[in-house]
Amino acid sequence: MTADIWDVVIVGAGLSGLSAAYLIGKRNPKLKILLLEGKDRVGGRTVTSEIPAANGVDRWDFGGQWVGSTQFHLLELIKELGLETYPQFNTGKKVHHMGKPNAKVRHYRTSLPALSPWVLMDLSQILWKIDRLCATVCVQDPSKSPRAVELDSMTLHSYVEQHAWTAELKEEMGLCSRTVFGMEPSQMSFLFFLVYAAAAGGVLRLLESTPGSAQELKIKGGTQQLSECLAERVGWKNVRLGSAVTAIWQDAEWARVTTDTDSLLCRAVIVTCPPHLAAKIHYEPALPSQREFLTQNMPVGHMIKFIITYQTAFWKENGFSGEIVAGSSTNCPFSVTFDATSPSGNAALVGFIAGKHASQWSPKEAGERREAVISSLVKYLGPEAASFIHYEEKDWAKEDYSGGCPVNVMAPGLLTYYHPSLRNPCGRIHWAGTETATQWCGYMSGAVQAGQRAALEVLAELCPTTLTQEEKEAVWYSQADQGPVQETISSKQKHLSTNKAVVIVTLTISAAFLLAQHRNVFQTVKSHLMNVPSVIYSYCNRNL
Amino acid sequence: MTADIWDVVIVGAGLSGLSAAYLIGKRNPKLKILLLEGKDRVGGRTVTSEIPAANGVDRWDFGGQWVGSTQFHLLELIKELGLETYPQFNTGKKVHHMGKPNAKVRHYRTSLPALSPWVLMDLSQILWKIDRLCATVCVQDPSKSPRAVELDSMTLHSYVEQHAWTAELKEEMGLCSRTVFGMEPSQMSFLFFLVYAAAAGGVLRLLESTPGSAQELKIKGGTQQLSECLAERVGWKNVRLGSAVTAIWQDAEWARVTTDTDSLLCRAVIVTCPPHLAAKIHYEPALPSQREFLTQNMPVGHMIKFIITYQTAFWKENGFSGEIVAGSSTNCPFSVTFDATSPSGNAALVGFIAGKHASQWSPKEAGERREAVISSLVKYLGPEAASFIHYEEKDWAKEDYSGGCPVNVMAPGLLTYYHPSLRNPCGRIHWAGTETATQWCGYMSGAVQAGQRAALEVLAELCPTTLTQEEKEAVWYSQADQGPVQETISSKQKHLSTNKAVVIVTLTISAAFLLAQHRNVFQTVKSHLMNVPSVIYSYCNRNL
Repeated sequence: MTADIWDVVIVGAGLSGLSAAYLIGKRNPKLKILLLEGKDRVGGRTVTSEIPAANGVDRWDFGGQWVGSTQFHLLELIKELGLETYPQFNTGKKVHHMGKPNAKVRHYRTSLPALSPWVLMDLSQILWKIDRLCATVCVQDPSKSPRAVELDSMTLHSYVEQHAWTAELKEEMGLCSRTVFGMEPSQMSFLFFLVYAAAAGGVLRLLESTPGSAQELKIKGGTQQLSECLAERVGWKNVRLGSAVTAIWQDAEWARVTTDTDSLLCRAVIVTCPPHLAAKIHYEPALPSQREFLTQNMPVGHMIKFIITYQTAFWKENGFSGEIVAGSSTNCPFSVTFDATSPSGNAALVGFIAGKHASQWSPKEAGERREAVISSLVKYLGPEAASFIHYEEKDWAKEDYSGGCPVNVMAPGLLTYYHPSLRNPCGRIHWAGTETATQWCGYMSGAVQAGQRAALEVLAELCPTTLTQEEKEAVWYSQADQGPVQETISSKQKHLSTNKAVVIVTLTISAAFLLAQHRNVFQTVKSHLMNVPSVIYSYCNRNL
Repeated sequence: MTADIWDVVIVGAGLSGLSAAYLIGKRNPKLKILLLEGKDRVGGRTVTSEIPAANGVDRWDFGGQWVGSTQFHLLELIKELGLETYPQFNTGKKVHHMGKPNAKVRHYRTSLPALSPWVLMDLSQILWKIDRLCATVCVQDPSKSPRAVELDSMTLHSYVEQHAWTAELKEEMGLCSRTVFGMEPSQMSFLFFLVYAAAAGGVLRLLESTPGSAQELKIKGGTQQLSECLAERVGWKNVRLGSAVTAIWQDAEWARVTTDTDSLLCRAVIVTCPPHLAAKIHYEPALPSQREFLTQNMPVGHMIKFIITYQTAFWKENGFSGEIVAGSSTNCPFSVTFDATSPSGNAALVGFIAGKHASQWSPKEAGERREAVISSLVKYLGPEAASFIHYEEKDWAKEDYSGGCPVNVMAPGLLTYYHPSLRNPCGRIHWAGTETATQWCGYMSGAVQAGQRAALEVLAELCPTTLTQEEKEAVWYSQADQGPVQETISSKQKHLSTNKAVVIVTLTISAAFLLAQHRNVFQTVKSHLMNVPSVIYSYCNRNL
């Protein structure tokens, strides 16, 4: 039995668990750490696979793939592990199709989609409002945000219904929700949405591939390497694959973690799996009911990600960037695609069937789904799209020990009542995983941040001398849910973004006013409004 | 191993599981049925306990307790088991306290609370709107309701915010949500609320103790007897207590149900536990992801129920009925109390700390909670309330294999996407439990209905000759999620209730109009409006 005593057992060998293990090991190499992973691989929601491509085979990411230059936790890890990034290709015409299947397919080149001036005004006013709200929310303890109960009592859908002027913008917001969360705007709390956006530095950062945004860079060789390199450093002997944790017992002296075949005693546990899976573990004694109520109500998104390889990147030759956005009524199964040509030049596109489309398409035959994807690609990019080399997809809802992707959201009414349970340790159990992050929550960078935070909590218990004073205070504040609230990325930019937004909204309101005043000035106003996209674009770029 | 082969294994020995077992056994006594129950008792969310009382000891219900005369499935069972009901005592002054702690405590005698005329008008208009919507929803398949996506995309809170005119009514609606669901209006889909109300025959039925309503009758000796009598008839040897199911495997021939100590082969399984607990079972092969997404997002309510016994029912002597309703800002921990004097005359009150109050009060010391309850009772009913015999409470969030009470609700965005998974069998697994009921969903009657429906599904598979043609068709329609939609209680009354409601609203609007027209007619109008409560009251009574 002595062999089965560990200092720290970590549930889940994804980026969060491995980051935690790595930090603990660096600070105190004497601590015995074990990672238990249900899957037969490390990496959690990141997985990199080899598929046939123009020059034989190549590797693509079928889970998390992008890195942004403001994702400091992840960038630092990439640097430390000696990995390299390269930019997301986004030069050329982008395709925008919203409305009914026979609606006009539009092309655009800016970072904001090809919308009519009126819808662009609508977009600017709603982004301004949301950005202002984002700047006020308290990411660390959302219940302390102004109007927290009110904002948490409505869905994102309800907010958009109340504040968007045009049906087109409502459709755009549905698309955003689907592509960011794999979920419809009806399924999440508006306050959660604000907190999530604030943790990333603003709404636009979630959507764009411009500098600082979520879709800016990719990792050469794929993101699963992050976990593989970390496992290497932590020691593969300390990682047990195919070992799903079924129960965690605690008494005054020990925690006991059990799998179907093992029972391990330890001094601290870090649970890193997504909340809906953490909820399936049997805890004895039972967790506080607040924690149970929280994890019962944090649904995970649904995304089917596909990679399709080609002999050549014909879309680039035709002046396209490879980016397509398609609304929910277009008959197109996917919501978004991007160029995915590999660093070694193997041409590919990556796309996402997400939210309600994933629900609709997931139960269908793989062949039918592929046909629908190809047929849409042909429609948007040309007949060359039909001559692909290989089509490979991953339905994350069907992945054991994930059950969905990319992130768990919070349904309305959770943040104001149960949020403290998200990170508060329960005895010897500490909580990590990207859902518990306060910077880039839901992203790989958040997974790293959360893992490191949980590692510090454990070190503070097991060997506090390895922590700096600052780290000790951070752990103390985090657990006490009080003290100086951590400055979020967005709040740093509050004044800056508000000032710029005021300019846009003044422009917008004036234009709207003029429009309403007299119909015969319409043409003049329209010509002015045509400049709005570039104004917004430059605003966005400078703001990010 | 042969000894461990069963025809049907039922997970959960609550009212739903036992009703299923009883019906299957009646139709085909040769079928081997086994019930597995995690708790050390039968009854699930019904439990009857003995506590000190005026004449020594007596029994009270600490879980589900009321029966309504429109709850046909439950009434039939009560009759069959030879149990007796008696009416909820509701004669005398009722106490109504809303607003700040120092707001006026009002008394009233009708079934609707003591509200100002203006708030009563507001209540009548919102009930009229909700009742009209209730009459249109399709309980069997809510996604087929008119405007389903819209209604499911908002919370009950958002609907009330948009349609209630007064802050007082908004507070009343919060109270209703808390007392019916143990949950705040922000935590559930508005469409779910409508479906739930429609399955009961209308919103008022959920709230009242008048004939036909949810709080009309009680069972002499307590409701747990229902399950105990059923277990007697099914045979106690076929009920294994302390046997929580951890996994269900299925192959072409068998289902295998495992607990920590047993592994049982069977031909069919009925899972009756609440969705959030059904979600914790490990299924192999995995359930369809739609089902996983559904059960991940059906949180259970939080209620702490208390019984407090007295030497005499002093409140009756003082002209009170024992019914108190208290709003969320009054400093009163409970939301509602009722007289709970036993059939043998032992004086008692029953009360509920619910929703956000349960969240706030649950982690506190039992003594502190008791003191707060007693202090509020003294405030509302007089100093005699301090001289109690015994105070006993049950926090359902802390009850193993329940984790909450009274019912699981649906967060927004579920009904329109994942609802079919609620009842659709998954291979050999059938789903019961009150959450799957179409009549009085969430109540004991719904538990019986759901158990019987699942029993018929199993019989249709194992021995179809035991079913009538009508039953076979019902099973077929239920599983195909198509065909003639079952007529709900509410739809039967659609025209009736609409006509009556129109009268009320006309009255209301006219009054409001007059009020707005001229201030010097205010007194006249006010005297007219004082009649509104009785109009509404008679409307409600006739409607129910």
